[in-house]
Order: sequence, then C-alpha cells, then structure tokens
Amino acid sequence: MKHITSPHNALIRQAEQLQRKSKARKKEQLFLIEGAREITLAIKGGYQLHTLLVCPEIFNQQEQVSKEFVQAQLGVSKDVEIISVSIEVYEKLAYRSGTEGCIAFAKAKTLQLTDLNLPNNALVLVAQSIEKPGNLGALLRTADAAAVDAVLLADPKCDLYNPNVIRSSVGCALTVPIANASTCEVCEFLRMKEIDLYAATLQTSIPYHTASFKNSSAIAVGTEATGLTDEMRDAAKANIIIPMSGEIDSMNVSVSAAILLFEAKRQRDF
Amino acid sequence: MKHITSPHNALIRQAEQLQRKSKARKKEQLFLIEGAREITLAIKGGYQLHTLLVCPEIFNQQEQVSKEFVQAQLGVSKDVEIISVSIEVYEKLAYRSGTEGCIAFAKAKTLQLTDLNLPNNALVLVAQSIEKPGNLGALLRTADAAAVDAVLLADPKCDLYNPNVIRSSVGCALTVPIANASTCEVCEFLRMKEIDLYAATLQTSIPYHTASFKNSSAIAVGTEATGLTDEMRDAAKANIIIPMSGEIDSMNVSVSAAILLFEAKRQRDF
Repeated sequence: MKHITSPHNALIRQAEQLQRKSKARKKEQLFLIEGAREITLAIKGGYQLHTLLVCPEIFNQQEQVSKEFVQAQLGVSKDVEIISVSIEVYEKLAYRSGTEGCIAFAKAKTLQLTDLNLPNNALVLVAQSIEKPGNLGALLRTADAAAVDAVLLADPKCDLYNPNVIRSSVGCALTVPIANASTCEVCEFLRMKEIDLYAATLQTSIPYHTASFKNSSAIAVGTEATGLTDEMRDAAKANIIIPMSGEIDSMNVSVSAAILLFEAKRQRDF
Repeated sequence: MKHITSPHNALIRQAEQLQRKSKARKKEQLFLIEGAREITLAIKGGYQLHTLLVCPEIFNQQEQVSKEFVQAQLGVSKDVEIISVSIEVYEKLAYRSGTEGCIAFAKAKTLQLTDLNLPNNALVLVAQSIEKPGNLGALLRTADAAAVDAVLLADPKCDLYNPNVIRSSVGCALTVPIANASTCEVCEFLRMKEIDLYAATLQTSIPYHTASFKNSSAIAVGTEATGLTDEMRDAAKANIIIPMSGEIDSMNVSVSAAILLFEAKRQRDF
C-alpha cells in the first residue's frame, strides 16, 4: 500500500476541501465517507468509491492491516485504490472522533427524479428546503426506518453530501433513494405518477390520522421556521396537521415526519 | 438596577459554575435558565426565580430597559431581583448565541414521584438512563407535544437542569411534569397506580400498533446503546416494537417515543 504521512500531500488537501466545502464537492462531483458502517452502506447504496484512506493503527489494532484485509472488512472491490495514512493525517481529515480509521472518496450521484424506480402504491417523503444538515440527516434516518420508496428534496438548501448530513443519518443518506428537484418539478412528478400529496402544515388542515395513506402517497414536510410554501400546499390533496396540546406548538421535523410516515405504515399494515 | 461589569464578580462566578457543573447545581439546588421563552415557560412550570441577569443592549435595542420593562416582558414577579450586566459578562455566561439577553437563576425542584398529580387514564412516558443531554431534551419536547401527564426519569444519567437539556427541549424541560426515581421505584409506582407499562424493546415483542393504550398507560424507552434493562422489561404488561424495514435497525429515542406516544394519542382520539 502507498503510505501518506504529510498533511500537505495533494490528495489529502483535496480531501480536506471535499470535507469542508460544498463548492468543492459540486465542482469535482466527489465527496468523502467516513466510518466503516457508512462505507459499507454506501457500497450497498450503489455508490462508486475510487480511493480509500486507511489509518492502520486505528482501523485494527490486533491484525496486520493489509490491502486484502481492508477489502474483506469493508466489502470494497479490488479496483478501489487503498492508501494508508498516518494518524496525524487521519485526524486532520476525520470529521468525528471515534470513527474506525477509514475514509473513502466516492463519486456523487446525479439524484434525478427520472432515476427513481417507484413501485405501485409508493410511499414517498418530500422534504422542502431543509437547511440544517443535522435535521436533514435525522429525517433520512427516519425515512430509512420507514423504508420509504423515495425521498424528494424539493428546492434543497443543504448539500446531501455534507459530512454532517451523512453522520446524522447514520449512513442512511447513502441508501435511501433520493432525488433533488425544484418544488415545481416535484409537484409535477407526483401528479404524473398519480401520487397523492399530503402537506404537513398548521394552516386549514385536517388531523393527519383522518387522512388515508393507503393509496400511493407522498408526505411533505418543510422547514421549522417557515413551513411549506404556498406552491407545495396548493398542490396537495390535503393539508394535514399533527394535533399538539403542549406548551410549544412545534416539533423537530424528523419527529413530525416519523409520526406521519409511521401512521401511513400502520394504515398499510406495515 | 444594580449593574455588573466584572466577569470576576462573585455572582457571575457562581453563575458560571451552575452553567458548567452538575455538581454545583446539585449542591446549591439552583440552575440557570437562558432565553426569554425559556424563562417564561419556567414561570409557567412553577419554577421560582430568585435573580435575573439582563444585558440591556441585547434584551431590547429600541426601548430603555428598566426594571418594570423587564418584569412586563418576561412576566417576572416583583420579588425577583433584576441585575443588569455588561455585554462582556453576558457573553461569558451565555450558553448559546442569539439568545435574548436574559439569564435567570432558578430554584431546582425535588421532582419526586409523590409530587405528581396524575389524572384518570393517564398517559406517561418513562425514560430509562438517557445519557445524552440532547436526546433527553428532544424527548421532553416530544413529551410536551403529546401532552403526556408525566415523564418518569428512571435511573437518570443526565441532569435535567443541564443547559443543553433545557435548550434541546426548547424549554419544555421546565413545563412537563417530571419525576426522578430508581427503576424499581418507577415500576412500583406504576403498579400502585394501576398504569399498564409498555416497554419499547427489540426482544420478543409485539408490534406497537397492536397494543391498546386506551387505559392508563406508560410507554418506556431506553438508551440507544443498550435499551431497557431486564427489570423494566419484566415489569411490563407487554414489550412493544416499532417494525422497521430499512438498512439501520435503530431510531433516535425521541423519534421512537414520538411514534409510540402519538399512536397512543390516536387510539385515544387525541
């Protein structure tokens, strides 16, 4: 294995840019994946890795860390270049502590609506303009647990490949089928596919559990600050609300989405 | 108003200790509440404030910040001492940015099971040994939205008055009825009150939506790492599970709790 010890190495500097800057990720159509579980999930999600950085001292303290060992541990194919890095270099790149000493360069997907393969009677989550990476990640983790058929990111304000999105999603950002599109395109797509849109909103809405999600359904959630736009609400078959009776009349968006998606799952008998 | 400009002032140093150290909070039976909404909720939740620090420049940039103005804005009673502090002092104490220039000293409650006033047909959340303040706070926000009658913190591992708990709960930590007790005491309390305990667990359990939460019910959730203890599961009427079909077989504890509590709410017709 090639070994890198200098933080000034060109590949390491490229990795740093990808970790920190959405612009760099967009320009190069590459992003970083940190952690063994996340890398395994990315492969499962059809992501193409091209380079894998491994810090042997962190990756495995018992065994000798050979190329074959890493390939077997992570399920990485043989055409992925594996490079070992020093602890100093690894810690410079690692976004979080306590990870498993491996970081992969992966090719971004185009994430287009036309790439989605929806079954009959689909259950879809629409997330409009979520801004906080932590919220988007948590939402994708919820979407994974509910095994939705797709997540449509309408007018996304946050890069899916932001390391904090991947981390908060526990890697689910890389396995859930996702498409980025404008709100207009999302509404048109749902109309064409005959998927009923239910918009979670506080205005003139019916309690969520009185709506039927048995047919093809999309559940749309918006930002905590401003909620869904008029465009999204106007395209909905119904506006739905979660009746709340506490002191605070809001919930975290991933919590709201979970309540709505699992009500749909319940109606569909899981 | 008295005015403090020195970060070395004894009261400010006391505040710093309360902000940072659980030990100091326990010893003095005092804690800090930051932010206008949080202070208002604390008063609503029956907390007794004894001193209020206000940074006039941040609290209100238009009006002159008099004692009477602060009292009216926050609904603080006249016996609470109001002290103005400099921006430098405020920023030293403030746990988060973008707050409203006010921090209150409040008296801790004893939070005992015997203090709870449960209605007939109560809905209770039991949270066992939650460790992360952010998770506990999110859980309490969910508990507020579901308007549960009480949250029982069984073998708590995290101080309710940790500033991060209060922040993540958006202040709900101060309004939801809460009791701290050992798991043994919690189980005994529920048995005495004839409240059915449902334990959220992955082992030999029934799907949550097949359980009936129409009678007095308690829903217990545990830590992400180890789940509920045997003691809690053995005391349960049933173990319940949220069927998940994604790549990751876990959910954030506040998300799980939301799904379970709102299923109970749905069965009770809100």
